[in-house]
Amino acid sequence: MARILAGCAEAHANIALIKYWGNRDHRLNLPANGSISFNLDALLTRTLVVFDPKLTEDRLVINGQERRREEHRRMQRILAWVREKAGVYHYAHVISATNIPMAVGLASSAAAFAALALAATKALGLHLDERDLSRLARRGSGSAARSVPEGFVEWRVGTRDEDCYAFTLFPADYWELWDCIALVSTRPKPISSMEGHRLAETSPIQWARVADTPRRLEVCRNALRNRDFNALADIVEQDAHLLHAVMQTSTPPLFYWEPVTVEIMHTVRQWRKEKGWNVCYTLDAGPNVHVICTGDMVARVQEALEAIPGVQQVLVSRVGKGARVLPTHLCMDLAQQGRIPTHWL
Amino acid sequence: MARILAGCAEAHANIALIKYWGNRDHRLNLPANGSISFNLDALLTRTLVVFDPKLTEDRLVINGQERRREEHRRMQRILAWVREKAGVYHYAHVISATNIPMAVGLASSAAAFAALALAATKALGLHLDERDLSRLARRGSGSAARSVPEGFVEWRVGTRDEDCYAFTLFPADYWELWDCIALVSTRPKPISSMEGHRLAETSPIQWARVADTPRRLEVCRNALRNRDFNALADIVEQDAHLLHAVMQTSTPPLFYWEPVTVEIMHTVRQWRKEKGWNVCYTLDAGPNVHVICTGDMVARVQEALEAIPGVQQVLVSRVGKGARVLPTHLCMDLAQQGRIPTHWL
Repeated sequence: MARILAGCAEAHANIALIKYWGNRDHRLNLPANGSISFNLDALLTRTLVVFDPKLTEDRLVINGQERRREEHRRMQRILAWVREKAGVYHYAHVISATNIPMAVGLASSAAAFAALALAATKALGLHLDERDLSRLARRGSGSAARSVPEGFVEWRVGTRDEDCYAFTLFPADYWELWDCIALVSTRPKPISSMEGHRLAETSPIQWARVADTPRRLEVCRNALRNRDFNALADIVEQDAHLLHAVMQTSTPPLFYWEPVTVEIMHTVRQWRKEKGWNVCYTLDAGPNVHVICTGDMVARVQEALEAIPGVQQVLVSRVGKGARVLPTHLCMDLAQQGRIPTHWL
Repeated sequence: MARILAGCAEAHANIALIKYWGNRDHRLNLPANGSISFNLDALLTRTLVVFDPKLTEDRLVINGQERRREEHRRMQRILAWVREKAGVYHYAHVISATNIPMAVGLASSAAAFAALALAATKALGLHLDERDLSRLARRGSGSAARSVPEGFVEWRVGTRDEDCYAFTLFPADYWELWDCIALVSTRPKPISSMEGHRLAETSPIQWARVADTPRRLEVCRNALRNRDFNALADIVEQDAHLLHAVMQTSTPPLFYWEPVTVEIMHTVRQWRKEKGWNVCYTLDAGPNVHVICTGDMVARVQEALEAIPGVQQVLVSRVGKGARVLPTHLCMDLAQQGRIPTHWL
């Protein structure tokens, strides 16, 4: 076994169709309710982890920038678990590169922690199955549990750590859906998702949203199984409004929508109702609108979204695969970004 | 007793601070939850009712326009009750004039049915106390129950018809609050409030909103009692978001907000948080924003709202009195609008 222990992995962001919001255990990220998502092929994070006995503290480099220790907190949850499991207590270089705009509500953390969990376990020779990897990623960021399996994914609410993981409902090619993400603002979020989850329980309607979740999951699963776009559209939009209803009525309230957000919501609904397009919207913790559509619609939806004043950019993505290990020799560019000798890989 | 039985009354619209949405009895308009409002002095409806033995069907004239029979349905609820009570079965001329823009979510029906209930009972010599008049007005439109008493008003949820009425919490001059109504659209509503109330129960969070109402009523009563603007602002905005959360998650969804609606909400919150203005927002079933403020703020709030692109007009109103009888000789103009001989009055 080499003195230097390196692992490299990549994972995609995901977009929730039935949202995760609120935890019953904030330390383990055991969620208040189950959720369903699909991975976003175009939004990718690659992460190289190198455990190094010479290192005196952990390092985190994202897109070539060294991050401050205050930003290591959630990463430590993963590294601590992995070190303990492997019995190896070296500090690590964590070098990550992503094409996901960070902190604008595009779930950059989901891809990041899924890739980190896989790279870190691989580096120390731990072989976790998909379920256990999903559980580990969950400790970094709840929604990261969903970026581990491929395609259309459900994250079970579970009863405890052991049975709270995500699994593939349908493979990526089961239904050609796309996410056209209308970016309307790249201002940093007023509050991180992590803090937001703690506020969920201050809303007087969070418990009703949670209690109603089994129904929404069932409707969503069936809509996906039957490739029934209109059924999917109704439940996805209702669920997004339930999420934002909880946010907008928590104390303090979280009000993420911008005027153009509302403009897009009206427009998308109109396209579906009046033009018969297979198109619906959902929103995470931010003002950007995710417009879900079928494959035959992508080009015209992207073009039509770009024509709306206030839309800065439209990212499009098909359904993506799960997290996967990369041969370390394919991660030379990451090593360089982290100023690690490439011969270590 | 004269052959011609005439009564005239006026009543104000009101703005709910804690909203009414959903009925447990749609025929009697027994509400799902209690509510609190104040009357809007500047938004007034005057109504003349004349029971006429020569008439072969009821007539309804609003602002000089004869209304079609299909629009008489809710009026019939009031007239039927009054005829039965008085034992007088003549048809009636109902002549009404209002300065309230209709069907844009400004509660024109609240003022209308409060004035109608009072004018009709007066015409037939019935002397209802305030409580019974509030119950009668409620049959026409739930929120009309709140336009009967003066000032700051609470509408008790009650247990049945008899104890489901509104009463004055504080007189109009208890606290100098104003409502600055930013009109952003005068398009007719996609769906009437009456139909909307029937949809409330299709939202998965309506029951949680209802269950939480006693708390909100208590917080609101205390904020009014203590003239504590910040406490009022927090509960009024939370309650408005709860109302729209239910609307936006009902089946079919009701989505009343326009982009400028959201712009105003952000702006008002900013005025309060950053400039320290006594100002907060609420919204009824429509895209217009009611901006509540203290008396010292009215001029600058009105001016600042008018400067927001997309705001068409700003109506301002202080807290108003309750419904009241007018001497019929002051209603000559109404008689003329309805082409009734003025010597009948």
